[in-house]
Amino acid sequence: MSYQAPVRDYLFLLRDVLQLDRYANLPAFADASMDTVEAILEEAGKFTSEVLAPLNAVGDKQGCVWSPDFSVKTPDGFKDAYAKLVEGGWPALGSDPAYGGQGLPHVVNVAFSEMSSAANMAFSMYPGLTHGAYSAIHVGGTQEQKDLYLPKLASFQWAGTMNLTEPHCGTDLGLLRTKAVPQADGTYRISGQKIWISGGEQDLTENIVHLVLARIEGAPAGVRGISLFIVPKFLPDAKGNPGQRNSVKCLGLEEKMGIHGNATCVISHEKSVGWLIGEENQGLRLMFVMMNEARLGVGLQGIAQAEAAYQAAAAFAKDRLQGRSLTGPKNADGPADPIIVHPDVRRMLMDARALVEGGRAFMAWTALHGDLSHASPDEAVRQKGRDYMALMTPVVKAFLTDRGFQVCSDAMQVHGGSGFTEHFPASQYLRDVRIALIYEGTNGVQALDLVGRKLAADGGRGVMSFFAELDAFIGAEHDPALKPFTDGLAKAKAELQEATMWLMQNGLANPDNAGAASTDYLQLFGLTALAYMWALQAEAALKHIAAGDADPFYATKVTIGRYYVERILPESSSRLAKLKTGSELLMKLPAEAF
Amino acid sequence: MSYQAPVRDYLFLLRDVLQLDRYANLPAFADASMDTVEAILEEAGKFTSEVLAPLNAVGDKQGCVWSPDFSVKTPDGFKDAYAKLVEGGWPALGSDPAYGGQGLPHVVNVAFSEMSSAANMAFSMYPGLTHGAYSAIHVGGTQEQKDLYLPKLASFQWAGTMNLTEPHCGTDLGLLRTKAVPQADGTYRISGQKIWISGGEQDLTENIVHLVLARIEGAPAGVRGISLFIVPKFLPDAKGNPGQRNSVKCLGLEEKMGIHGNATCVISHEKSVGWLIGEENQGLRLMFVMMNEARLGVGLQGIAQAEAAYQAAAAFAKDRLQGRSLTGPKNADGPADPIIVHPDVRRMLMDARALVEGGRAFMAWTALHGDLSHASPDEAVRQKGRDYMALMTPVVKAFLTDRGFQVCSDAMQVHGGSGFTEHFPASQYLRDVRIALIYEGTNGVQALDLVGRKLAADGGRGVMSFFAELDAFIGAEHDPALKPFTDGLAKAKAELQEATMWLMQNGLANPDNAGAASTDYLQLFGLTALAYMWALQAEAALKHIAAGDADPFYATKVTIGRYYVERILPESSSRLAKLKTGSELLMKLPAEAF
Repeated sequence: MSYQAPVRDYLFLLRDVLQLDRYANLPAFADASMDTVEAILEEAGKFTSEVLAPLNAVGDKQGCVWSPDFSVKTPDGFKDAYAKLVEGGWPALGSDPAYGGQGLPHVVNVAFSEMSSAANMAFSMYPGLTHGAYSAIHVGGTQEQKDLYLPKLASFQWAGTMNLTEPHCGTDLGLLRTKAVPQADGTYRISGQKIWISGGEQDLTENIVHLVLARIEGAPAGVRGISLFIVPKFLPDAKGNPGQRNSVKCLGLEEKMGIHGNATCVISHEKSVGWLIGEENQGLRLMFVMMNEARLGVGLQGIAQAEAAYQAAAAFAKDRLQGRSLTGPKNADGPADPIIVHPDVRRMLMDARALVEGGRAFMAWTALHGDLSHASPDEAVRQKGRDYMALMTPVVKAFLTDRGFQVCSDAMQVHGGSGFTEHFPASQYLRDVRIALIYEGTNGVQALDLVGRKLAADGGRGVMSFFAELDAFIGAEHDPALKPFTDGLAKAKAELQEATMWLMQNGLANPDNAGAASTDYLQLFGLTALAYMWALQAEAALKHIAAGDADPFYATKVTIGRYYVERILPESSSRLAKLKTGSELLMKLPAEAF
Repeated sequence: MSYQAPVRDYLFLLRDVLQLDRYANLPAFADASMDTVEAILEEAGKFTSEVLAPLNAVGDKQGCVWSPDFSVKTPDGFKDAYAKLVEGGWPALGSDPAYGGQGLPHVVNVAFSEMSSAANMAFSMYPGLTHGAYSAIHVGGTQEQKDLYLPKLASFQWAGTMNLTEPHCGTDLGLLRTKAVPQADGTYRISGQKIWISGGEQDLTENIVHLVLARIEGAPAGVRGISLFIVPKFLPDAKGNPGQRNSVKCLGLEEKMGIHGNATCVISHEKSVGWLIGEENQGLRLMFVMMNEARLGVGLQGIAQAEAAYQAAAAFAKDRLQGRSLTGPKNADGPADPIIVHPDVRRMLMDARALVEGGRAFMAWTALHGDLSHASPDEAVRQKGRDYMALMTPVVKAFLTDRGFQVCSDAMQVHGGSGFTEHFPASQYLRDVRIALIYEGTNGVQALDLVGRKLAADGGRGVMSFFAELDAFIGAEHDPALKPFTDGLAKAKAELQEATMWLMQNGLANPDNAGAASTDYLQLFGLTALAYMWALQAEAALKHIAAGDADPFYATKVTIGRYYVERILPESSSRLAKLKTGSELLMKLPAEAF
C-alpha cells in the first residue's frame, strides 16, 4: 500500500480542535473557510500520494549526480514532478497575494508540507528551502529586492537556498570566514566555501537564489560582523530574467546516509556578485527568520516520515501471517494470524499513532499561534502568538524529530527481517528521517536554545502564559470522560513546573546545570505539550460522541489519547528525576578520560 | 583515530570483577590464568584493530557481489584477513581441544568476539555463525559427524551457516516447507528455498556446511515435524576433503541497510544431499543450541558497535572546535572550545560509557555462568549457571542491542552534520547495528521469550535465584562509598520484583497482559541487571582505591557507575508504571483502525 495522506485527521484538527472558523472574521483567514480547506487538502492528498510518493524510492536509489561542468542532475522524474508542483499552484498556498501567493494561513500550509514531506522528503526539501528564502526577503528585503525576487520565489519558478555552514563552522557561526568586498556599484563580491547546502545546485529551476552569510571586509569578529547577501546563480537582467552566470559553483555532493534525492552541495563563491539584504552586520537576525521557519519545517519532517513509516508498518502487520494470538487464533482458517494480533506489535503501532497524531496537533497548534501573531487584531493575542512561536520552536523541532526517529525505527522493527532489506520502504524512512535530528541546529542545540534563551525571554512570559493556559484548561468543567486526560496533564504540568523552578534556581548558579538538564527538560516539555494536545483532541472527539456521532474515528481518537497518557506520558517522571541530578557527575571526568 | 580494543576494561572485568582466578582449580579454567588471558587479549586487540578494522569501511562501500555462476565475491581484503584469522589460531580459542581447539572458557572468547565485531561486524559474522554450526554438531552429531566436521569447523577451514528462514516463515518456524526425502543410503534429499542466510555463499573457505531445518516427508505439521540436516556445499570425499558439488545454490543477495560486507543469501536446495543430525522431528532443539549462542553473540554485537561508535564520537568531540563552554573558555588560545565542554555532548558520551561498560560486564558475567554450567564440580552452581543462561539470554540479546542502537545514534548526533555523511564512520555503525535488534528473533520475540517462557521455567527458579543474589549483595557489608549503588539497585530490584508479581497475577488471567508488558519488563530487567553490574564494578574499583591505587581508571569507573545510577536507572520507574497498565487500551482497536 502506498502513502495515504492524513486528510481526515487534518480536517478534524482544523475544524474541531483548532476551530479555524472562529477566525473567519480576520482578513488573513477570509479565504480559509473549512469548505475551501477541505477541497485544498483533498487535492493535496492526491497530488502528494500520486505524483511525489512514487518517486521516493527512485530518488533514494538513484541519488543526485554531479558533473565536472558543475551541474547536478536530480533523480528521474523529479523535474516533471517539480513542474507539476509549480503548475498546480501549490507553492503559492501560504505566500503573500501581493507577490502572486494565495495568502492562506500557515496552519493550512502545514498540512500540505507534511503530506509532501511524507510522500518524498528529499524532493520536498527543494521547495521547502525556497520558502525560507522567500520569507527572509519578504521580511528584510528592499522594495526593489522584493519586486524582483518574491514573485519568482513565491511561484517556485526560482529556488532559494541557505548558505550558512563552512567546513570549520556549523553551529558556531561566529567563526565564519566567507568574505564580502563592497564594490563601487553598491554590490559585493563574495568569496568563500560553503558546505552542506541543500539544493545548492539542481536541474529543476531556471535560477537559484542563494542567501549567503558572509563577513564584510573590516567587520567585527564573531557573530556581530555577519551580513546576509542575495547571490543568484544567474544575475537577473533588466527584465528580471536569468542573465549572466554568477561565479557560484557546486564543487561536489556529499555522500549521505539518506535523503539521496536531495543534492547536498559544496558551494564555492569566487568573487560572486551579491547584494546586501537588511543592514550590514545584522545578517544573523534575518538568517533566523529562515532558520526558525526551517526548524518548524524540520519538526514537521519528523512527523511526516513517522506517519509514512507507520502506514507501511501497519499494512505489513495486517498482511504478514506469523504465529498465533496469545488468546486463541484470530485467523483460524489461515496458516497463522496476522502479526497485528501480537500485543508487542500493537505497542509499536499504538506508540506511532499516539506520537504522530499528538505531534501533528502540536505542530498545527503552534502554526496557528504563528498566524495569530500577525493576523489577530488583539495585541495580547499577537504577543502570545509571538511568545509561543519562540518558545515552542525548539520543542517542535527536537521533540518531534526524536520521536519521529523512534517511530521510524519501530516501523522497521514491525517488519522484522524484511525491514532491514531495501525491498521494503522502512529503511529509507529511517535513513531519511535521521538528518532531521541534526540539521538546522542539532537537537542538543535546540534544548540549549530552550533553556538558555527561550525560557527566560521577557521574564519568562511565554512559559508562564503556557502554564496559565494549562491550569485554566485543567480547572475548567469537562465531560467526565476527559478526567484521565486532565489528570495526566496536571501531573506532567506539575513536573514541568518543578523542572522549570529547578532550572531557575540551579541554572544561574552554574550554567552547566542548565546545559546538563536541557535535553531532559525539552523532552519533559514535549511530553507535556502532547498531553495537552491529546486532551484537546479528546475533548473535541467526546463532543461528537456525546452528540451521538457514531463515526468510529472519534472513539479511536479517545482510545489513542488514553494510550498516550497511560503508556507514553509516564516517562515524564523519570525525565524530571534525571534532570534534577545536575551537572556534577556529568562534567566530573577530564576530557582525557574519553 | 581508528578502533582501539578495550583490553584494559576486559582485564579489569576478568581479574577484578569476575575474579577468574577463583576458578583456576577447575580443569576448564586451567589454561586461563590471568597472565595467559592478558597475553591473548593484547594480541586480540592488535589483530582486530590492525587487520579487521581497516576493512570495515571497505566492506560497507563495496558490499558482496553475486555472479550468475552462483558464486559470491566478498569485499577486497576479506579473503586475506580470513586467512590471517585462521592462521593466527583465533577460531580455536573457545573450541574443544579434542577437535583442535584451545578450550578456553567462553568468557575469554567473548572478549575476542566483541573486539572482532567492533572492528568489523560484517566480517566477524562469517566466523561467528561457523561457531554456531560447530556447537550444534558438537552437541547433537554422531561421533562420525563430529570427527568429520568439527576439526574443519573448529579451525574455520570450513564455514557453517544456519538455514532457517523461508519467504513465508521467519519467527513462526512451524510454517516451514523445505522438504527432506529419505534415501536408501541413509542420506536425505533436501528441497526448498531459504532466505536471509548470512554467509550462505562466499569465497573465504573451501567448503560451507549448511545446517538446514526441513520437514521429513510425512512428518507432523507444525514445529513438531522439523528436523535438522547437515548439507555441505561440497560433499566430503573419502578422505574428508571437499568432493562433489552439492546442489545448494545461492540465487542472489539481499540489498540491505547495513552489514554490506556480509553476504545475505537466498539459498535454493534442489534435492541437495543432506544428513540428519540428532533425532527425526527434534530439529528445533538443536537449532536452539545454535540460536541461543547466536543470541548472545547478537547482544555482543550491540555492545561492540556501540563501543566503536563511542570511540569515534569521543575523538570527534575532543577535536571539533565550536562554541565556548558555558562556564568560560577552556581553550582560550584557540578560536573555540572543543565540543566536549558542552554538557549535552558529555551526556551522550557518558550515556555511551555507562551502557557499554555496564553491558559488557553483563555479557561477560552471563558467559561466565555459561562456563560454570558445564565446568563447575558443584551441581548447584551448574544448575544456577543453566538457569541464568536461559533467563539472561533474551535480556542480553534485546537490551544490549536496543541500547547499542541508541548509543550509535547518539554517536552520530555528537558528530553533527558530519555524522550523516559517509565520510565519517558514524553512519555505518548505526546502519550495521540496526540488524541486531531484528535477527535471531526480534527484540519483541526476546521479550515474549522472557515473560512467556523463561520467567516461569522450573517454577521461577532462575528469577528467584537472581533476586536472592541481589538481596544478598544489597544486604552485605560494603565500603560506604558503595551506598549510592546499593540504594539504586535496591530500588530497581524492588520495581522488578513488583513487575514480576504483576505478571504472575495478570499474565495468567489474560496472556495479552503478558505480551503487552513484555518489552517494558525486559527493559526493566536489563536496567536492573546493569545496576548490579555497576555495583560489582564499583566495588572492585573501590577496593583498588582503598588500597591506595592512584590509577585514574578506578575513579573513572566509580564516576561512570554513579552516573548510570543517577542518569539512566531512573527510567526503571516509568517502565514499571507503563507495564502495569495492562493490555486493555493496547488491544482495544480493531485491526481495521490501523
